[in-house]
Amino acid sequence: MTYRLYHMQSSGNCWKPRVALHQLGLDFELVDVDIMKGESRTEAFMARNPNGRVPLLELPDGRFLAESNAMLAYLAEGTDLIPADRYARALVFQWMFFEQYSHEPYIAVARYWRHLEGKEPPEAVPGQIEDRGYAALGVMEQRLAEAPFFAGDIYSIADIALYAYTHVAHEGGFSLEDFPNIRAWLARTATTPRFVGMDWRP
Amino acid sequence: MTYRLYHMQSSGNCWKPRVALHQLGLDFELVDVDIMKGESRTEAFMARNPNGRVPLLELPDGRFLAESNAMLAYLAEGTDLIPADRYARALVFQWMFFEQYSHEPYIAVARYWRHLEGKEPPEAVPGQIEDRGYAALGVMEQRLAEAPFFAGDIYSIADIALYAYTHVAHEGGFSLEDFPNIRAWLARTATTPRFVGMDWRP
Ligand SMILES: N[C@@H](CCC(=O)N[C@@H](CS)C(=O)NCC(=O)O)C(=O)O
Ligand SMILES: N[C@@H](CCC(=O)N[C@@H](CS)C(=O)NCC(=O)O)C(=O)O
Repeated sequence: MTYRLYHMQSSGNCWKPRVALHQLGLDFELVDVDIMKGESRTEAFMARNPNGRVPLLELPDGRFLAESNAMLAYLAEGTDLIPADRYARALVFQWMFFEQYSHEPYIAVARYWRHLEGKEPPEAVPGQIEDRGYAALGVMEQRLAEAPFFAGDIYSIADIALYAYTHVAHEGGFSLEDFPNIRAWLARTATTPRFVGMDWRP
Repeated sequence: MTYRLYHMQSSGNCWKPRVALHQLGLDFELVDVDIMKGESRTEAFMARNPNGRVPLLELPDGRFLAESNAMLAYLAEGTDLIPADRYARALVFQWMFFEQYSHEPYIAVARYWRHLEGKEPPEAVPGQIEDRGYAALGVMEQRLAEAPFFAGDIYSIADIALYAYTHVAHEGGFSLEDFPNIRAWLARTATTPRFVGMDWRP
């Protein structure tokens, strides 16, 4: 038995566990779920993940785990992808929660609408997605002036979580022109051992 | 030196580290930050947390940690507030990421607008906050049919994260009438040792 990942290839959240599984040298198989066709909302899928979303990770023993960043935490435990120092480890979680709360809802959502749906994103407050997305990039830029990776000196799952949608930010209309530290970090991340991009499949 | 928490009393995210610090028997002091007056966006505050938000935890050694759920993870390490089993620990993170992604943006945001601002929340898609908030409650209700707490048999920081805004869901216009498992779990959580509510201060 190996890991089985229910995923959609073009989703940044789904790329996160793919790259981590591969960088850690773990065997896994993929099950494609097309969210545009509602395949994450079928009765069969909802029995596995009542929250109706991908990615969903099936462990070798058949148990399920949802939430991309929780998968990263699970897979990284005791490996080089998470720092041993207690404070550095807390920073990994700080940046992963930042990603889900202050980054993904703007940068990934803009990409979803513009790139996948080919429409402008619906907005309650016009300009908010752009403002908040750039604010998140600004916070990242400042952090990367202090350290090469989000948790400090070491590449970690926090970098995986933030790379996911930052490297395709342009597909949602965000320019990285004014963010040289982010551009350098993207390049640094993409050259870590066994790194694989969004299109790669095992 | 003790912990110092920059917080706002009425914020559910800020209650999370308060209750954890107290349940773990750790000494701490509070610094009140009024976000309604922009106090989390001053130059002095942004130097401590470039993301401009509370809660912000200052560790006894003077280092800072942002993100309520990252504080919970940091404080709980090696204590009874996080399970020792690897899979149960992954579930703690699954539910904490669920809270920040699928619950807080609807249930806390509705409360912010209705209870603190006294206005209807701005919405891009009318009814979405209500639909998604109730969807999150539905997922919780189903989980609590299987287990007394989110990670399983043991009260953990996942319960703290989800209690924060669920117990005041009515202030955002959500009724728990149809969620008996959630109501029983709220009562169970509130009777854990050294539990303190939203109004408590050390
Ligand atoms: N917080 C979740 C978000 C997952 C998520 O939003 N998945 C999207 C694709 S990127 C999805 O499955 N959407 C389909 C749906 O909600 O029906 C995670 O990090 O795993
Ligand atoms: N993901 C953050 C959210 C923190 C957050 O949104 N804090 C709000 C109060 S509950 C805040 O500081 N808002 C003021 C602002 O953004 O200026 C966490 O869990 O700590």
